[in-house]
Amino acid sequence: MAGTKNQLFMGNFIHSKTREELEYLINTAVCVDAKGVIVAVERGCDRETAERTLYPRLGWKAGEVDVNVCGDGDFFFPGFIDTHLHASQYPNVGIFGKSTLLDWLNTYTFPLEAKLGDEKLARRVYTAVVRKTLSHGTTTACYYATRHVGSTNVLADLCLELGQRALVGRVCMDEASMCPDFYRDESPEWALEATKACIAHIKGIDPDYARVKPVITPRFAPSCTSQVMRLMGALQKEMDLPVQTHISENTSEIALVKSLFPESKHYTDVYDTHGLLTEKTILAHGVHLSEEEATLISERKAKVSHCPSSNSSITSGAARVRWLWDKGIEVGLGTDMSGGYSPSVLENARQANLVSRHVAMGIPDGEEKERTKLTVDEVLYLATRGGANVVGMEDKIGAFEVGKEFDAIQVGLGAIDEEGILRGEGNVDIFGWENWEEKVAKWLFNGDDRNCKKVWVKGVLVHERK
Amino acid sequence: MAGTKNQLFMGNFIHSKTREELEYLINTAVCVDAKGVIVAVERGCDRETAERTLYPRLGWKAGEVDVNVCGDGDFFFPGFIDTHLHASQYPNVGIFGKSTLLDWLNTYTFPLEAKLGDEKLARRVYTAVVRKTLSHGTTTACYYATRHVGSTNVLADLCLELGQRALVGRVCMDEASMCPDFYRDESPEWALEATKACIAHIKGIDPDYARVKPVITPRFAPSCTSQVMRLMGALQKEMDLPVQTHISENTSEIALVKSLFPESKHYTDVYDTHGLLTEKTILAHGVHLSEEEATLISERKAKVSHCPSSNSSITSGAARVRWLWDKGIEVGLGTDMSGGYSPSVLENARQANLVSRHVAMGIPDGEEKERTKLTVDEVLYLATRGGANVVGMEDKIGAFEVGKEFDAIQVGLGAIDEEGILRGEGNVDIFGWENWEEKVAKWLFNGDDRNCKKVWVKGVLVHERK
Repeated sequence: MAGTKNQLFMGNFIHSKTREELEYLINTAVCVDAKGVIVAVERGCDRETAERTLYPRLGWKAGEVDVNVCGDGDFFFPGFIDTHLHASQYPNVGIFGKSTLLDWLNTYTFPLEAKLGDEKLARRVYTAVVRKTLSHGTTTACYYATRHVGSTNVLADLCLELGQRALVGRVCMDEASMCPDFYRDESPEWALEATKACIAHIKGIDPDYARVKPVITPRFAPSCTSQVMRLMGALQKEMDLPVQTHISENTSEIALVKSLFPESKHYTDVYDTHGLLTEKTILAHGVHLSEEEATLISERKAKVSHCPSSNSSITSGAARVRWLWDKGIEVGLGTDMSGGYSPSVLENARQANLVSRHVAMGIPDGEEKERTKLTVDEVLYLATRGGANVVGMEDKIGAFEVGKEFDAIQVGLGAIDEEGILRGEGNVDIFGWENWEEKVAKWLFNGDDRNCKKVWVKGVLVHERK
Repeated sequence: MAGTKNQLFMGNFIHSKTREELEYLINTAVCVDAKGVIVAVERGCDRETAERTLYPRLGWKAGEVDVNVCGDGDFFFPGFIDTHLHASQYPNVGIFGKSTLLDWLNTYTFPLEAKLGDEKLARRVYTAVVRKTLSHGTTTACYYATRHVGSTNVLADLCLELGQRALVGRVCMDEASMCPDFYRDESPEWALEATKACIAHIKGIDPDYARVKPVITPRFAPSCTSQVMRLMGALQKEMDLPVQTHISENTSEIALVKSLFPESKHYTDVYDTHGLLTEKTILAHGVHLSEEEATLISERKAKVSHCPSSNSSITSGAARVRWLWDKGIEVGLGTDMSGGYSPSVLENARQANLVSRHVAMGIPDGEEKERTKLTVDEVLYLATRGGANVVGMEDKIGAFEVGKEFDAIQVGLGAIDEEGILRGEGNVDIFGWENWEEKVAKWLFNGDDRNCKKVWVKGVLVHERK
């Protein structure tokens, strides 16, 4: 799947200039070549000017260019990056009762994941999840599948087929005391071979990992033997692939890790001593990390996926994003379905804003309390550029810049007419006097998939609202 | 606006049996008379049985009855009750930056409310807000309008015209040190006359307050002089009307009240000593109440409107619903637009669930921590029966029971077909193996206005999704 023609995108573009600040490129022209790469970004440029000044520079001819113009009230935004979600758990979203992590795994999660060994069922569930997340503007997703090779490969196939950029991981889990008999890797060696089989499959369907990439996925320390973690660490070194796992989500889990790995200094040390704490490692959660652990993560340049909806809904805790940033750690957002209830990165940006306020509530009045709160601009950075850093694609995605690939959402907002009637759909109601900053705030707080009118990955249209 | 025919509703009905437990009335018939009153609720009853056994008992003839059947996967749910929102602030939803209550009022709120003195603009904004909240299933709304008589009356007219059950309050605010010159009642006496004018208007358009009712609305203690609160207290006593105000939302506000009313024991005492703490009083927020204040509120039988979205988004704090319940206080939900960002009571039920988990995070492991978490059933109680208690309509609305009026939502969920394609719309994806409890949990966590297929107030269809 690749763009076949050069494309001109015209209209308003909004993206993160820095972590603190969105940039508003109003009436701008963005040229995207047939490979999906942005080759020009020109402000204050109408179509005629684009054709007169940009096309010759690019060697383009007007008749051969596809033109996409967004309306005055619409804007293009970089596609969202979901840095942590379990595709296999999608059917369980919203279902967790009063459970917390460890009982939630046994009650809801393992039984469902085990069923997805059935590839027909896996295809059904994964089709739903890829389509659903695309419809919410997720152009890149970092997936946990299940421990099954066949079903994991189905997920990779579907991402390629439906056009989503993805990291796809077979879940590695072989620790008998933690994984149920019906859902456990047979041995560390079996786990290694199974993981290699998934990597080979993805290499087969997308040799340059241009769209789909494997990710080494030891579920989390309690599910894994020391042997398997060592094998995965060695595999990472050998193949230079990304790694994803969970860390420090819940206090009971931390106590469990302490009891399972008594020789380790702390949870982070478990991964570090098994060769799993690398520059390419994505650590989901990181809610209860100690100063020492955060310093080590920062030194290793490992990344954190912040999953606010999940952390609130299964009462894990409130992660301190500002504190992680202060430590020099890169952070992105994860929906963490189905610990998280929502397929939407936008919902998680909203929740990141709210959770940071809950963190602030615990801090005495003053400057520290104020700066703990994440702004609208900052949570949208987390959803895009922050996520790009986390998945190691900061050179490719996350903003509208020459040299990056065009992963984008066309956002449309509703308008309230003079009679008070909504024109358009969704819950972002624009009265007409709002400035761009206010429109974006309204979108953050009330936006949903209805505001994602079109979605592109690498310049290819992969979703359009009917 | 009134139902003109008897109606039979057939299908699945779900409502709160108790605070702790939803009741699932599957394949049930509910008969609603021409006045909108439920006259029969019969379980396991198909249409033929209804016609054979219920109609004769009710004196109905089959040909004269309108029949509404919901599909197998759909269900009827009691209409939502929004116990606190500012209709006038709707255009500002989602806009609050990093502000907290007192600077938020001056920066965003007062300037917008002042503009709504223009009745044409008020009609536009209020049309949008009534239609929007109806589309989210809010069948009863307890509104703050603005301090303007004419615009407040426009809101009351619109509720009647569009069919929403509502309490409508002209905002009373005369304290010069707190209210800006451009937006302040001229004097306590003027405030009293203005409030009476709105009451008279509503009496004129809906003499029995069958659908729209006035509510005495001293904004909150800091905005009001002692004189005006005393006059409002006396008015309440004279006319036996409901009262709404704010209490203990934010720590700076509490300190301000202490400085403005040095002779009062605490914030609650301010209202109590001015005759405003009554059985018909709705207190929004109550985040930081002391034990002594909660005891006094409980003794006076005043009610609390819990506004979780608002409390999180403007960093007010995390209200302790379980603790309020333990004190014997009735609690409902408020969207509190635009301190709250969402027009949806369902979103606020979801946030009530999440906020209770943030409260629990601050409690040591054990039974107390566990019971602090509100369940799915409990937050849906807050949204319906709890709200009915708060607005003093527990005999009329909040459940499907003989004698109550039929305020209801027909909820429809999406279905994932065998190919993984969504049939229907929205974000509640049913795979087919879920039980009713799981379906309701999914709806709570991912539902939106798309799942509100039809909405009735007093048996009259007031919203239908196209």
